[in-house]
Amino acid sequence: MLQSKLFAKTQRTVPKDEKSVNAILLIRAGYVDKLMAGVYSFLPLGWRVMFKIANVIRHEMNKIGAQELYLAALHPKENWQQTGRWNSFEGLYRFKDRRGRNLALGPTHEEIIVPLAKKIIATYRDLPIYVYQIQIKFREELRAKSGLLRLREFIMKDLYSFHRDEKDLDRYYEEVKKAYERICKRVGIKERTFLTLASGGTFSKFSHEFQTITPAGEDFIYICQNCSIAINKEIKKNYPKCPNCGSSSFKQEKAIEVGNIFKLRTKYSQPFNLSFKNEKGKEKLVEMGCYGIGLDRLMGTVVEVHHDEKGIVWPKDIAPFKFHLLQLDKQAKVRSLARKVYRELSSLKDEILFDDRENKSAAEKLVDSDLLGIPYKIIVSQRNLEKKAIEVKERRSGHSKFFKMSELKKFYLLN
Amino acid sequence: MLQSKLFAKTQRTVPKDEKSVNAILLIRAGYVDKLMAGVYSFLPLGWRVMFKIANVIRHEMNKIGAQELYLAALHPKENWQQTGRWNSFEGLYRFKDRRGRNLALGPTHEEIIVPLAKKIIATYRDLPIYVYQIQIKFREELRAKSGLLRLREFIMKDLYSFHRDEKDLDRYYEEVKKAYERICKRVGIKERTFLTLASGGTFSKFSHEFQTITPAGEDFIYICQNCSIAINKEIKKNYPKCPNCGSSSFKQEKAIEVGNIFKLRTKYSQPFNLSFKNEKGKEKLVEMGCYGIGLDRLMGTVVEVHHDEKGIVWPKDIAPFKFHLLQLDKQAKVRSLARKVYRELSSLKDEILFDDRENKSAAEKLVDSDLLGIPYKIIVSQRNLEKKAIEVKERRSGHSKFFKMSELKKFYLLN
Repeated sequence: MLQSKLFAKTQRTVPKDEKSVNAILLIRAGYVDKLMAGVYSFLPLGWRVMFKIANVIRHEMNKIGAQELYLAALHPKENWQQTGRWNSFEGLYRFKDRRGRNLALGPTHEEIIVPLAKKIIATYRDLPIYVYQIQIKFREELRAKSGLLRLREFIMKDLYSFHRDEKDLDRYYEEVKKAYERICKRVGIKERTFLTLASGGTFSKFSHEFQTITPAGEDFIYICQNCSIAINKEIKKNYPKCPNCGSSSFKQEKAIEVGNIFKLRTKYSQPFNLSFKNEKGKEKLVEMGCYGIGLDRLMGTVVEVHHDEKGIVWPKDIAPFKFHLLQLDKQAKVRSLARKVYRELSSLKDEILFDDRENKSAAEKLVDSDLLGIPYKIIVSQRNLEKKAIEVKERRSGHSKFFKMSELKKFYLLN
Repeated sequence: MLQSKLFAKTQRTVPKDEKSVNAILLIRAGYVDKLMAGVYSFLPLGWRVMFKIANVIRHEMNKIGAQELYLAALHPKENWQQTGRWNSFEGLYRFKDRRGRNLALGPTHEEIIVPLAKKIIATYRDLPIYVYQIQIKFREELRAKSGLLRLREFIMKDLYSFHRDEKDLDRYYEEVKKAYERICKRVGIKERTFLTLASGGTFSKFSHEFQTITPAGEDFIYICQNCSIAINKEIKKNYPKCPNCGSSSFKQEKAIEVGNIFKLRTKYSQPFNLSFKNEKGKEKLVEMGCYGIGLDRLMGTVVEVHHDEKGIVWPKDIAPFKFHLLQLDKQAKVRSLARKVYRELSSLKDEILFDDRENKSAAEKLVDSDLLGIPYKIIVSQRNLEKKAIEVKERRSGHSKFFKMSELKKFYLLN
């Protein structure tokens, strides 16, 4: 991609109504645009990051046997009345259409997936089954003030699992836990993310949250200093000792909930009477689990965790591009080498952004590149040309390596 | 994918409230589920088709230099007031949130993309630029009765182009026309689709629609029998002769509008004052084009065009799977060959659905396969086993070919 053609402009100044680091950096670097409080649009660079995050999640969901589908966002009132949540769901957007029909915008999809599953699940042979979607959700947050961390419109991965008994639900729940750990690792937040015990509602003792520690977090968690399990503040007072190992040494941290997993048991199968025939021909309620990840929030969290005073520092797997080619001087030889590098590398794969802008100085290009946070700069300059080498500088460490063209191609392909 | 695990069930009976062919077949085959009039959810099979359609479109958009982004669905009233469409847009979903703020659900995105472009476009150097999204839209259709052809919630590709002058807009408009023709070809509706002159509004003489003829269509078009340009009924009375070739011989057809392209000129840049500085430093309004394709409607149209009395007949490039492996008998040898075929082919690529259901007869499996409309059946049966060959039967023609395993692998890879 040529940066001169990119639908984005970097901004030197801080947007005046933004206070959170993630929103300030993502807006300044041209990844997102704020439409109103809690509602953002994604520019091409931001959308590339979102696509990569979605594909990491998709890959891990498919690996645990989940099938992707796509449920509607516009919901009829009747489905939400059936569970009693038409009135009780905090922040449910509700409105009437021109014909007076009551509608809601889906903040979650239990009310839609359960009646749908009822058309498909009939006997034990149809279980277990797992479905997920990566889809738009709406929730009227009263305080939408933390950039991408607390949105009114957001993209969510929600997985629902259906089981014949609690034991099978428990088995799959552990599989999802591991998938979530792999996702956290691939998007670069594993070391800061703690499995956190939270309220399980009426049907199970605990639910589990994946909480990532950062000063931008709005939750408080207590990390057991012995076994590293964390406990959400909401339930901490009930557990002076760690329910996992019995230790009573905790460290308090601020954290962001990037994912949660929940044993719903029969909470939703009951109101919709989602049942199956077991081997003996007896009707039993289906046991369910649900498992969410907010993709926008995850992107915001990654920025909160991975930035420095110069800008974003993307983890490699979700960077919009892996390489940022900078042509720093305007001499014909520099220009022609930069074009050659771009031509050869971009023909191998689409992981290079070329800052070919004519009206920007070398200093401006370097500052913008640090703000954008692409993992590797490829620096083509008069000085490097004299060294007969192409410089590759890592954004995170600031270390440079020098390559010949053929070696650069290898390095590009391997990264 | 194993059919025994698929989140879908075929239905023998016709859903009682559906009258359109596309909805009846897509529901019966387990591709979609109706949530309410005009609102459908996509099951895994339907979502695979949608994904493939989206990727065909994406590929053709990228080829004409367009960049993908993603704009919000929840819009503030102010943007729609700026163009006067808050009150005039037919079917705009409008509502107040809990804090009394007026919001709309986006049925199109001129009101969002233009103010965003204003932050990015400053001079002639920033033009031309093209952006598109594949995103959810909402429109309150009063009559939602044609299955996927007329929805209240739908997925749309909308492309917006920005130009320095009309000439450059004209140039790109022709490029988009060709991209749309390639898309129609790849999704299998090219022979039935006619470029159709329609009203251009106040700013240009004509807009162009891509109209696909089928009895399910709600539009009437008049196809010039000399040059094959069509004219929409809306404007036909103004053109007794073909504006393209002068002929006065037309054939009337019912058709579905699957895409439209529109020279907006300065219709939206004017109210938002989207301007640029030209080489002489003079401010000029940006010229714009917009170009839409409804993906759900396209899927419905393909089904209207490609079906027979037994079910859907998917064009190869957008079929959920290209091969449907049917194990028709239960003998150990049949079973083991079917498993081997599945194992070997699915390891090459993910284009095979294996009907491994134990409780279905051979006849039921064949009927379901015809309903699903996957291009090639691979039939593993006792009879074929005796012939020492694997039968591959084309859904469209009903013709069979017989392969050895090694030949089958080649055929699978090439298709």
